[in-house]
Amino acid sequence: MKETKQNILIIGAGLCGSLLALRLAQRGYKVNVFEMRPDLRKVDISAGRSINLALSNRGIKAMKLVGIEDKVKALCIPMHGRMIHDKTGNTHLSNYSGREHEYINSISRGELNGLLLTEAEKHKNVSIYFNKKCKSVDFENTTALFQDYKTKDKFVEDADVIIATDGAGSAMRKSYYLGKKFLFSFSQDYLTHGYKELSIHPKENGDYKTYKNALHIWPRGSFMLIALPNLDGSFTVTLFLSYDEGEYHFNNLTTEEAVLKFFQKEFPDALALMPNLIDDFFKNPTSPLGTVKCSPWHYKGNTLLMGDAAHAIVPFYGQGMNASFEDVVEFDKILEKNLESWEATFKAYQKTRKKDTDAIADLAIDNFHEMKSHTANPVFQKKRKLEMLLEKHFPDEYASKYALVTFNEDIRYHEAMLKGRAQDKAILNLLSDGIISTKLDKTKNNLKTILDKVKQETEAILEDDRIADLH
Amino acid sequence: MKETKQNILIIGAGLCGSLLALRLAQRGYKVNVFEMRPDLRKVDISAGRSINLALSNRGIKAMKLVGIEDKVKALCIPMHGRMIHDKTGNTHLSNYSGREHEYINSISRGELNGLLLTEAEKHKNVSIYFNKKCKSVDFENTTALFQDYKTKDKFVEDADVIIATDGAGSAMRKSYYLGKKFLFSFSQDYLTHGYKELSIHPKENGDYKTYKNALHIWPRGSFMLIALPNLDGSFTVTLFLSYDEGEYHFNNLTTEEAVLKFFQKEFPDALALMPNLIDDFFKNPTSPLGTVKCSPWHYKGNTLLMGDAAHAIVPFYGQGMNASFEDVVEFDKILEKNLESWEATFKAYQKTRKKDTDAIADLAIDNFHEMKSHTANPVFQKKRKLEMLLEKHFPDEYASKYALVTFNEDIRYHEAMLKGRAQDKAILNLLSDGIISTKLDKTKNNLKTILDKVKQETEAILEDDRIADLH
Repeated sequence: MKETKQNILIIGAGLCGSLLALRLAQRGYKVNVFEMRPDLRKVDISAGRSINLALSNRGIKAMKLVGIEDKVKALCIPMHGRMIHDKTGNTHLSNYSGREHEYINSISRGELNGLLLTEAEKHKNVSIYFNKKCKSVDFENTTALFQDYKTKDKFVEDADVIIATDGAGSAMRKSYYLGKKFLFSFSQDYLTHGYKELSIHPKENGDYKTYKNALHIWPRGSFMLIALPNLDGSFTVTLFLSYDEGEYHFNNLTTEEAVLKFFQKEFPDALALMPNLIDDFFKNPTSPLGTVKCSPWHYKGNTLLMGDAAHAIVPFYGQGMNASFEDVVEFDKILEKNLESWEATFKAYQKTRKKDTDAIADLAIDNFHEMKSHTANPVFQKKRKLEMLLEKHFPDEYASKYALVTFNEDIRYHEAMLKGRAQDKAILNLLSDGIISTKLDKTKNNLKTILDKVKQETEAILEDDRIADLH
Repeated sequence: MKETKQNILIIGAGLCGSLLALRLAQRGYKVNVFEMRPDLRKVDISAGRSINLALSNRGIKAMKLVGIEDKVKALCIPMHGRMIHDKTGNTHLSNYSGREHEYINSISRGELNGLLLTEAEKHKNVSIYFNKKCKSVDFENTTALFQDYKTKDKFVEDADVIIATDGAGSAMRKSYYLGKKFLFSFSQDYLTHGYKELSIHPKENGDYKTYKNALHIWPRGSFMLIALPNLDGSFTVTLFLSYDEGEYHFNNLTTEEAVLKFFQKEFPDALALMPNLIDDFFKNPTSPLGTVKCSPWHYKGNTLLMGDAAHAIVPFYGQGMNASFEDVVEFDKILEKNLESWEATFKAYQKTRKKDTDAIADLAIDNFHEMKSHTANPVFQKKRKLEMLLEKHFPDEYASKYALVTFNEDIRYHEAMLKGRAQDKAILNLLSDGIISTKLDKTKNNLKTILDKVKQETEAILEDDRIADLH
């Protein structure tokens, strides 16, 4: 870049900010990072945030970019599929893919964030300041106002460029919104459901109380419980439930008795692993599930929003962290082009990236509805069964929507959305019309014939939409 | 309703607020209305707002409800179609419908608003206060804070129920957003384009300078000019143009020379009617085009958002005012049910109404893109030609998306959207695949056959979407 702006201020040292700091440091920029929380390598600040996350291909690609793939892999617990628990405690494992090497990983948010901070700090050109809360950003003058958590002193930091990676509640995004200096499109959309974190402790000998290498899920139509393993033998459990609808909801689960009754009825096998349920339930907060979109992400060449600050999504595709990591990969590609200015760089980045983050946001909402209403729908179950067979027998020719999003890091989210939705529609309609079925035979309804029909119908659906200009 | 809450405070005496006041007065409620502007029957306050609007069936239905249809009709100028002007000044009239009785009406915002205020004030139980600007609403205690425009005094008004019809920039909606007392989903989305109002004055003898009974349109791909007639012989002209893209855009039309050059090149026949262009252009503001959605519209049984305050839309379907008037019709239907409380009433209203206002917002955005990119597309032109023929020859069997939205007040916006989009997709694909064409014959490709194929394909598209749960 011809511009000599080299001092970069990053607001927020979470997953996205610390990765960005590391990558910009590798590129030789001088980077100052200000984080409102204390250093999570020294203080336990996990309360209320999701403790572990699913790391998959897009995120791993970012780890490769900065050269720490091996260190990250050491923190990972592979989850090969969903372990589905019914109301009587029966379980069955449903693989994430028909291809054996495709799985997702449970990883501790704190461990991964700590690693990224440590790696970033190895660079002399990176300084990280904790307990400094950003109050607002003056995006005309490229300065940010901070407050020290302990002394309460306020101070202003100047920079050539400010990048805000300060999460879904971004202070800089708020300054964009309240500033009214330019037309700022913005949305915050809450689901009817909230979530609460619970836990399954390890056995006394440190072993896992249930199967380690899966994402456990107790789907119950309009609500569900999930559990992801941690390295210490525990599982982090999350309850997704409506605030105010249905027989049981967060607003009426106000007594120990009600909570126990609810779990006894709906999740008896989980309850048996959670003698600590009541403690967790009443100690941990209930948090909302929201989607944030906005545009523009940048103001001139001065400031840029990245990660959750630009696009917060609901967790039902396990892609929030992966999308934020991919932001850094995509931003890095634009930097590599060495455009004439930061403004051109930011514009090019948003132009290429925004439709992908919009797509994963919409896909995550799709999955919320799919999990609620489709798990019990026979035609959706048949679709899943066929897709597993297609992926297993034609690993290079078929990838489900889930696989396109999760395991195909070189296919963009937007493309995965279009193709994945068309495939789903194709299979559901072919099944519904009796053109294909799950009863395979050697002649008319063999897997190869099904694959060909699905491909043909998918292409026809995409072409019909293209003609009607529906994309 | 069993509740005895009978004092209703309405914030905003625009089109929606004054109609609501009139209807609630007819139902016997005691109504106080506070409006931030002066009384538009006494002071000209048109500057910067759209001066005339298109009134169509949904709006007229509301006028019938309150019994003022005849008085409103006297203010209307029928527009039977679009008069399309090409770059050399050639024109052709494209009817809005193949059915003669289906047309839209140009009406003055000020005249209509004044009529509604006068009709409302005929009721003893209505009081309207002008120059009182709402600063915020305490929705827990059902009070609103106002400031008098002249004295600057602030005062608080109490009510049993507050209904905010204070437009796209609603103060009450802002209180919902900033209050953070409940999860408030909210979006504001700006288009890349803004608009500016201009005018064609009458001839010296008071006659219209161009054809009176049409909505004039100068479509130019990425921008356009439109003109609607006024009763005094003038036309109100609106330029829709990008802020910062294309050869000419608002940000570079900064000199008289540039503006004249732009109009000479793109709209020579319009320019010939507008010796006042430069005055208008530099006197009138450039305003943004935005969509606002939010949820919930109400807080408990205390407060409710209606009209643009709840759902502001872009003008490309001519439905903004009509949608707000329809709000009152739909709200009135719920009142008629005499539910047990205001809370139940507000809930029932949002439950039935929200998906329709979401639909018209999305349809209006569709039309922005259609106008920009489809007017020059041959297959879209063929579609329009066929639809006109179908509507003319099968008036009871076919209605285009435009007709479903505009002339079928008993079909809900959401239904009109689903059916209209499916029909468009059906015709475009049948045309593209050569299954139907605009070259009619007596056997294979006669109109009846085309109608049957379009109906069949439309139903197939809707069914495919239903199976894939895409609605």
